[in-house]
Amino acid sequence: MKSFMNQDFLLTTKTAKWLYHEAAEQMPIIDYHCHISPQEIAENRTFENISDLWLGGDHYKWRQMRFGGIPEERITGNAGPREKFRAYASVLPQLIGNPLYHWSHLELQRVFGIQEPLTEENADEIYDRCNEILSHCTARDLMRKFHVHAVCTTDDPCDDLHWHEAIRKDDSMEIQVLPAFRPDKAVQIEKEGFAAYIRRLSEITGRLIRCTEDVIASLYDRIEFFADHGCLCADHGLDHCMYAEPDMAAADRALQTALKGGVPSRETADAYMTALTIACAKKYTEKNWVMQIHFGCLRNNNKPQFQKLGPDTGYDSVNSSSGVENTAPLLNAFLENDGLPKMILYSLNPCDNTALVTIAGCFQGGGIAGRIQHGSGWWFNDNRTGMRSQLTSLANNGMLGNFVGMLTDSRSFLSYTRHEYFRRILCELIGEWVESGQYPEDRKRLTEIVQNICFHNTNEFFGFGIQEEKEQKK
Amino acid sequence: MKSFMNQDFLLTTKTAKWLYHEAAEQMPIIDYHCHISPQEIAENRTFENISDLWLGGDHYKWRQMRFGGIPEERITGNAGPREKFRAYASVLPQLIGNPLYHWSHLELQRVFGIQEPLTEENADEIYDRCNEILSHCTARDLMRKFHVHAVCTTDDPCDDLHWHEAIRKDDSMEIQVLPAFRPDKAVQIEKEGFAAYIRRLSEITGRLIRCTEDVIASLYDRIEFFADHGCLCADHGLDHCMYAEPDMAAADRALQTALKGGVPSRETADAYMTALTIACAKKYTEKNWVMQIHFGCLRNNNKPQFQKLGPDTGYDSVNSSSGVENTAPLLNAFLENDGLPKMILYSLNPCDNTALVTIAGCFQGGGIAGRIQHGSGWWFNDNRTGMRSQLTSLANNGMLGNFVGMLTDSRSFLSYTRHEYFRRILCELIGEWVESGQYPEDRKRLTEIVQNICFHNTNEFFGFGIQEEKEQKK
Amino acid sequence: MKSFMNQDFLLTTKTAKWLYHEAAEQMPIIDYHCHISPQEIAENRTFENISDLWLGGDHYKWRQMRFGGIPEERITGNAGPREKFRAYASVLPQLIGNPLYHWSHLELQRVFGIQEPLTEENADEIYDRCNEILSHCTARDLMRKFHVHAVCTTDDPCDDLHWHEAIRKDDSMEIQVLPAFRPDKAVQIEKEGFAAYIRRLSEITGRLIRCTEDVIASLYDRIEFFADHGCLCADHGLDHCMYAEPDMAAADRALQTALKGGVPSRETADAYMTALTIACAKKYTEKNWVMQIHFGCLRNNNKPQFQKLGPDTGYDSVNSSSGVENTAPLLNAFLENDGLPKMILYSLNPCDNTALVTIAGCFQGGGIAGRIQHGSGWWFNDNRTGMRSQLTSLANNGMLGNFVGMLTDSRSFLSYTRHEYFRRILCELIGEWVESGQYPEDRKRLTEIVQNICFHNTNEFFGFGIQEEKEQKK
Repeated sequence: MKSFMNQDFLLTTKTAKWLYHEAAEQMPIIDYHCHISPQEIAENRTFENISDLWLGGDHYKWRQMRFGGIPEERITGNAGPREKFRAYASVLPQLIGNPLYHWSHLELQRVFGIQEPLTEENADEIYDRCNEILSHCTARDLMRKFHVHAVCTTDDPCDDLHWHEAIRKDDSMEIQVLPAFRPDKAVQIEKEGFAAYIRRLSEITGRLIRCTEDVIASLYDRIEFFADHGCLCADHGLDHCMYAEPDMAAADRALQTALKGGVPSRETADAYMTALTIACAKKYTEKNWVMQIHFGCLRNNNKPQFQKLGPDTGYDSVNSSSGVENTAPLLNAFLENDGLPKMILYSLNPCDNTALVTIAGCFQGGGIAGRIQHGSGWWFNDNRTGMRSQLTSLANNGMLGNFVGMLTDSRSFLSYTRHEYFRRILCELIGEWVESGQYPEDRKRLTEIVQNICFHNTNEFFGFGIQEEKEQKK
Repeated sequence: MKSFMNQDFLLTTKTAKWLYHEAAEQMPIIDYHCHISPQEIAENRTFENISDLWLGGDHYKWRQMRFGGIPEERITGNAGPREKFRAYASVLPQLIGNPLYHWSHLELQRVFGIQEPLTEENADEIYDRCNEILSHCTARDLMRKFHVHAVCTTDDPCDDLHWHEAIRKDDSMEIQVLPAFRPDKAVQIEKEGFAAYIRRLSEITGRLIRCTEDVIASLYDRIEFFADHGCLCADHGLDHCMYAEPDMAAADRALQTALKGGVPSRETADAYMTALTIACAKKYTEKNWVMQIHFGCLRNNNKPQFQKLGPDTGYDSVNSSSGVENTAPLLNAFLENDGLPKMILYSLNPCDNTALVTIAGCFQGGGIAGRIQHGSGWWFNDNRTGMRSQLTSLANNGMLGNFVGMLTDSRSFLSYTRHEYFRRILCELIGEWVESGQYPEDRKRLTEIVQNICFHNTNEFFGFGIQEEKEQKK
Repeated sequence: MKSFMNQDFLLTTKTAKWLYHEAAEQMPIIDYHCHISPQEIAENRTFENISDLWLGGDHYKWRQMRFGGIPEERITGNAGPREKFRAYASVLPQLIGNPLYHWSHLELQRVFGIQEPLTEENADEIYDRCNEILSHCTARDLMRKFHVHAVCTTDDPCDDLHWHEAIRKDDSMEIQVLPAFRPDKAVQIEKEGFAAYIRRLSEITGRLIRCTEDVIASLYDRIEFFADHGCLCADHGLDHCMYAEPDMAAADRALQTALKGGVPSRETADAYMTALTIACAKKYTEKNWVMQIHFGCLRNNNKPQFQKLGPDTGYDSVNSSSGVENTAPLLNAFLENDGLPKMILYSLNPCDNTALVTIAGCFQGGGIAGRIQHGSGWWFNDNRTGMRSQLTSLANNGMLGNFVGMLTDSRSFLSYTRHEYFRRILCELIGEWVESGQYPEDRKRLTEIVQNICFHNTNEFFGFGIQEEKEQKK
């Protein structure tokens, strides 16, 4: 029996243990996709209490508190921070087998030195100990504690990136903090607020927007602006991955309908979204950016709660009809348009793993190792089951050795522990293979593979190293 | 090497062993969804031979006998009971890895004290030993042997529940036997016999049925009648989970077409079924019932055999197009109609697990712990693989601690062994987590979690305890 | 720690070890579906170098080399054989967890006596050692080395089977090499070249082809011709498994459109393909052939590369919309048309496993054991994960004991190692069940089950034994 989450947590073999402790553990972190606030880094935010950090904006925890029967008052309502912390602590032991159970305790261990399991009984004491430590701790302290090398935030094309500018100019900040381009509001023509967003984009770029090409031209302006601010990647979110044969006239009809506040037809909306996505891909290729696509989500399923709390509050789910089959013609369209960038594809539906990695396999080439990546287990798959499934699927039908590995996708400065969680699971899996004779016990090679997946592949794929050089040349 | 199905069957760790033997094993059984006959309980049925009990109506076994090349004569045909038993025994050893292999031997062990594996060679001897024991054994004896606390049968709204009444009045029967409301025949407008069924419903309730609201009013009458007979839950079977925007006029068109013996259009049929389902949910909420939905089945695939043998004879399969994505708007419609009851959702397609539990997660709340449950592995998933997958999925994206656990869904008084099977698998899984350091070895907490899942959660969720009090007050 | 791919590779328990070494290992191989060239067997081909054998036509390896960033020049281009071998060796260590890693090393071990892992460093030396051995080795030598008993190739209905004729007449060849009937070009009405193919079929059979019935009559002629050449099975490839209600007029419209070079509508094309498939099934039933259907593929996803390299060059993927649900009405149509042959169904989408085996379960019967088989993990599922998943799914919802087991689906004389790989995985899985008490440790029975799955079931199901007798009678 292994004791609870000790130093060998999830490391079930000798090979897993040395691989993690000697190869993986000390590697710096590149968190190439997250929702952290650049303002909080620029201002080097401090934290009043652990509830702010843990429960302020974390819809993963909110969902679980609702599963546990906690009244909304103590989740997103007006209850005080201590009371909310107690409420979370009271449901935590019920979360046996849930990644939140592990994430929460990894965070308590690594940042707060708390080794015992959090329960309703010790909630008050742990709350106070955490807050004591937080009182000496800033956002940047947390990033350094986790050996963070670089992060990419998630930014709207209309953003002026002034917080990024501030971080860039701050000589006391050695960690790379780069923007990432997320043009969803310009692409998702059916969502509320689209027309207003296009007007804003028009103002910022000074371009009249009357047709799809105008939207594209405006986004291209902003891509240049982001590139000038060190951006290396973009990210597209699509609830359902669409594909329509290129038809600019249909796209324009959709745009005109939507700009007048109408609802475009399914067909013309798909034509517009496809046209935008292809055009973006072409520009990213030109800039040598990495393009990410996240798809397969049903959003805001609970309408009454959506009206009360807005989006991203814990009411989304997997979309079993994710459109994964459309990634094939979509990537082909990128290619035929001479604009297939380096890519990372994520589906929220775990059943898509094999389909997705085999589609990715059809667009490798051009001498770029791992050009189209199958992204790490995302959101509802960001757990041991989901990660093992993605890693196994990638190994079976892709090339694990080229994998760009983990990201947090998180809003919290504590979530870097998820990289540790991923690395342990990676070493567990490889350890199983080696100790059952499925891969040679070649320490040098194994170290290389694991360190590549933890750091070097990402660094090279995105070009963080290149970025560093550029910075130095200035 | 562990010997075949001994006392530690499936219990792979020390933790699993004590958890099962000290926490799970002795818990009483609540079988909250089954197809047992209330008449057989009321009359305290006896059994002539093991073939009647095992092969009389068990289409799981029939399918496997067909897989094994047994002629239909010895499956559902006129062969004698001994011959049928021999036929089943002859294919059983081929069923390596099949749950029937384990269920059959658990039943032989627990009820008949037979420890050796059943084969063609010892079939005759075992047949005789079983029959000898059966000659001293009634339906209620079997229920008591398994420590059954309560069962919910499956009953048509038109049923007069007189067998339930008889059981209720029988002072010698201490086990709760409650009806469950299954209005499929009133909802599934496209099935044969719909019009005749509606006429029968009309006669029984004394209501003229001319429109959808009339069907609803009739069902509401029957729900009141069932509630008066102690009913705590309802169950809806849908081959494909449909959803249509509320449109009572369309629903009425479907009904009028169907009542005239016509086939309503896909769209109007969906409108009718959606309207009925929403209306039922509202009434269940009012009565504080639990609503179950079973969906994702392709039925009667083999038409020639369907014509010979009728439904439920072993010719159904998983529907890979289950409509799981429609559960999201359907539950939202319940909520917006102020009628979201406590629910248990089951899909027959194991690929739906993650989608389903994440959709369930969007409708938790109102301070009810585990309000929307992801049901235990159903039918083709009622095996170790399917149960581990459901439990893991639930743990990853829901809250395992709140789970209402196992049911048999069976027609047989021997099937209570499936609760044992489930409990062993549950303890196996939790044991793995604890012994690999993924959860603290806190015996009190673990005992509580396991006993809750085996009994207390169900008892509280359905209100069997409350029910008991009501009974005592009479 | 087990050393790398030693004699107990994948055999994790004592039971697995004796089962493999005493029961499975020595069984002869029946490779009932492959793409080996009968010409190469007839001419008893020799091999210039290992690159020809390994990299000449193996799109599995090509895909992985592209994943690894190797330029196309060294994959399908003009680079020399040594250079291509080096390129493959350079990516191989990155393929940790990939079946190619195991297949490649099994081939190096079994045929070339090379025990060390292939890497960039030892590539040149191993290349020379392999070629030295190949210089003494023919196609038939390789088949004998692997104890091959019989193979079924894959042949077009228009083929004159003269290479098969030559092998049949060659007294020095004791291994059965039989044709298999693959009428895809006559069925897949939407593919390029359909009209030309039908003209060719017309010429060969001397039948005017003006309607669907004429196509059917022509195929029936060819089925008779194939039967006369010892054929025992057919194979149909469908990217998406279609089903349309029988409508010969619609089928004829599709045919007439296609023969004029037009594109038939989706509906009429499905009517045509369904009609052809049903008609073929009827004839196969009459001939007592086994019918295989492979479905669920997205082909030629990368159009620019398809234009350069043609089909089967590594640009196909899983089709997440495989049409698995249509296998149910399709098999029912076979049955209602009095023509349901023995069948093996394969879907490329691993998510279809449970649906497929439960559909297969609806069409068992007629006293034929395992009449409808769920085929072994195919293509992207032909790996340990995919095989364990298929075996487990089959065991849970079908009858593992009747399984017809493994096939290579390969173009290479080295691929018979995949039977070894499969047998090890089968023994691993059964070993786990036995040693955890899930199945009795009955050596006789276990030996029988494993030897049946490795050889006897296939031999009987296809009738190879019967075939042998026929041959002897001549």
